[in-house]
Amino acid sequence: MPKLDLDAIPQTNATGYPPPFDAAVAGRWYRRLAPPAGLTLMGASHCTLLPGAFSSQRHWHRSQDELVVVISGHAVLIDDHGETPVGPGDVLAFPAGEENGHHLHNRSDEPCVFVAVSAGAREDDSGVYSDIDMVFDAEGYARKDGTRYEAHRIP
Amino acid sequence: MPKLDLDAIPQTNATGYPPPFDAAVAGRWYRRLAPPAGLTLMGASHCTLLPGAFSSQRHWHRSQDELVVVISGHAVLIDDHGETPVGPGDVLAFPAGEENGHHLHNRSDEPCVFVAVSAGAREDDSGVYSDIDMVFDAEGYARKDGTRYEAHRIP
Repeated sequence: MPKLDLDAIPQTNATGYPPPFDAAVAGRWYRRLAPPAGLTLMGASHCTLLPGAFSSQRHWHRSQDELVVVISGHAVLIDDHGETPVGPGDVLAFPAGEENGHHLHNRSDEPCVFVAVSAGAREDDSGVYSDIDMVFDAEGYARKDGTRYEAHRIP
Repeated sequence: MPKLDLDAIPQTNATGYPPPFDAAVAGRWYRRLAPPAGLTLMGASHCTLLPGAFSSQRHWHRSQDELVVVISGHAVLIDDHGETPVGPGDVLAFPAGEENGHHLHNRSDEPCVFVAVSAGAREDDSGVYSDIDMVFDAEGYARKDGTRYEAHRIP
């Protein structure tokens, strides 16, 4: 069915981030939408960010466009421009290759719900975490000197 | 700026549909988001569907995934499964090549606002309108016998 039954799609807060970088996203509960919906040309996640949680470590992608549509609740977008409040109906766009690390932080006392969509080269997606000693590629995570973390990305 | 200033992006109700198929979308006011946001790997539109308006003629795409996130208001999704009410927070997904023509109809007395995202082959995108004598390709519109309409798609 084109209208997704969100309640029927399992929700998880799993992350591939190695410690201690995983703690910031423990309150990020998401559903991967593309597999149950049959989408193969984009990625999509429905995300509920609990109070205090971050959407990710601050990062940017080399070869994927990202778009976020905020459905409910409030969060703060943190990027190289500073801090920007976001709320219902706001749309955020992150072009592939733009080296502007970004994430969302829920500083409110209510959940913030959004949908994140990505498109572009998924097999060789890679990028950089702005604030920590970590980069990512299709396989997983490494320090900026190239040595690998013992951690794998969650598809 | 990653948070899009929606009010600063021009809104239009232009359509390339030839008459009489254009009338159904006269109340569909949209902003193309990808060009001002710098996105090149996906298409995205912010759409306000006025009461009575359709989102498009009922159609499907051969080579583009589509995802719709409803922000506010209510509409009815019409597809081969029948009619399905949709409202704030609903997510609709239309996989490339799935021959299930779909559109939204605002039967309420308030605007319905949604974001539609597409990904896939854009240069040779093509598809079929389910209920009328029309197909589309990258150039424009034709009847199902192949003769062209004097009309061009709006990028």
